[in-house]
Amino acid sequence: MTPGRVEIVEVSPRDGLQNEPELLGTEDKVELITRAIAAGIKRIEATSFVDPRRVPQMADAEAVMAQLPRLDGVSYIGLVLNRRGFDRAAAAGCDEVNYVVIASDEFSRRNQSLATDEALAVYDGIGAAAREAGMRSSLTIGAAFGCPYEGEVPAERVVEIAGRVLESKPSEIALADTIGVAVPTQVTGLIEAVAARVSDVPLRCHFHNTRNTGLANAYAAIEAGVGVLDASLGGIGGCPFAPAATGNIPTEDLVYMLNRMGVQSGVDIARLIDLTAWLEGRLGRQTPALLGRAGNFPPEQRRA
Amino acid sequence: MTPGRVEIVEVSPRDGLQNEPELLGTEDKVELITRAIAAGIKRIEATSFVDPRRVPQMADAEAVMAQLPRLDGVSYIGLVLNRRGFDRAAAAGCDEVNYVVIASDEFSRRNQSLATDEALAVYDGIGAAAREAGMRSSLTIGAAFGCPYEGEVPAERVVEIAGRVLESKPSEIALADTIGVAVPTQVTGLIEAVAARVSDVPLRCHFHNTRNTGLANAYAAIEAGVGVLDASLGGIGGCPFAPAATGNIPTEDLVYMLNRMGVQSGVDIARLIDLTAWLEGRLGRQTPALLGRAGNFPPEQRRA
Repeated sequence: MTPGRVEIVEVSPRDGLQNEPELLGTEDKVELITRAIAAGIKRIEATSFVDPRRVPQMADAEAVMAQLPRLDGVSYIGLVLNRRGFDRAAAAGCDEVNYVVIASDEFSRRNQSLATDEALAVYDGIGAAAREAGMRSSLTIGAAFGCPYEGEVPAERVVEIAGRVLESKPSEIALADTIGVAVPTQVTGLIEAVAARVSDVPLRCHFHNTRNTGLANAYAAIEAGVGVLDASLGGIGGCPFAPAATGNIPTEDLVYMLNRMGVQSGVDIARLIDLTAWLEGRLGRQTPALLGRAGNFPPEQRRA
Repeated sequence: MTPGRVEIVEVSPRDGLQNEPELLGTEDKVELITRAIAAGIKRIEATSFVDPRRVPQMADAEAVMAQLPRLDGVSYIGLVLNRRGFDRAAAAGCDEVNYVVIASDEFSRRNQSLATDEALAVYDGIGAAAREAGMRSSLTIGAAFGCPYEGEVPAERVVEIAGRVLESKPSEIALADTIGVAVPTQVTGLIEAVAARVSDVPLRCHFHNTRNTGLANAYAAIEAGVGVLDASLGGIGGCPFAPAATGNIPTEDLVYMLNRMGVQSGVDIARLIDLTAWLEGRLGRQTPALLGRAGNFPPEQRRA
């Protein structure tokens, strides 16, 4: 059933940028985030607290957080992969941390040097520390729809991980199609299976448009009852350790689809289009998003 | 409910190519069509029989048809916009003609110099002539999901057109998102409304990916019971008279989605990827399709 409202988590400052060869300056990142908020975004993956030698684009995490405005109702998310990252995120003033467990061992080892079960154990400590600090902590299950090294990931394995994670009391569990292989019926099935296991923990979904199925998967997810979707302005993004993982679903294209479906997101589509145009100028290239090229429809709503 | 099988109508030789500034030679068109058939395509929009001064890319319609192999179970479709076009298509040996009625008057006048009701009257003669000649005649309702000049197109108008068309006994009615503005819930609603009006006439859908919603719409269409989808190799295509109408849904991306959903199409995905690579060479540019860049998944199925 189509919901009346969906929350969008803007991930361009982290998942979007981390794969960009061009380093964006701290001022630009702050402008990107504040303009996304001005467009109506309420939750935003602002940065990650990881090893700057592995992800140079995120080396200025503390500096970005220090320059962001503090606004009622806006939640800044910091990605963390270990306790040290959590401590940095908490000290930097993040409202929320997001931790990633990758569902397949081989991909998990390549991404964070831990097997999946070892990564789950790390999350226990982070979840506990977040509760103590009064911060939300969400958990993303990466490669939930397929792994570049192991192929198909059984839904049972994802359900098992989600169940295991409950012990750490996450504020939300995200199912991530890290490499962009999911198809809609798979999305529906996995959401139903995970929701049955985790009952009242809210679900979020994270899709990449690598094989053009991104918005179809987003549609399937909200029809299956998921109320929160990750998206990235311009559709930038990907994982540097996942081959061919090109682009999150574009925020403006998602908002276009939601708007015309009568689903509220609270986001102003004209501001998103303008912001992507600005971002393309900073990155020096066209992004994969299509709405800015084609224009809103009906056209008179462009500035609604 | 997800069906077990969906038929794909390959439209790259006509809707795909007609907007290309580079004229493709007759030999290349014949190679494109015969290789698409070798990949498993059974219905193919081979060409159009229209005024070559308006659509120079289709000036060699008769020459293309003359060089195509005659194969059991393969149906060549010719697009026609008037009785003269029908006569040319019949003489050239088309198995099927497709006529287009655009649901909004302004777009209809610009596309074929007739108001919608006038265009419907023309179809009466074509439908009758096709029956007499023992040819299938399908009817496409263009701009069924929105018009670049008039904005929203009321579903009631599309249902009215579909009902009016029944008198001419079309073999199939297609709902076309000519300018790529549709969203999935709109697709579901329009299909339900039209299906209720036309009862046993099969429905086909034609989507453009102009705003990234193409595969989401295709998914909604098959869930709503539509058994036939138009698609274009590489996602090439558009209408020269519709601003910003960039690209049909890419055949290979659609087949990827169908395959992983367990929906049979009878089409070999590896051959499609190879054929698009060849087509990109002939057109001298990259196409919008994503599967060829990202690769099939799981990878070992690439040559399945």
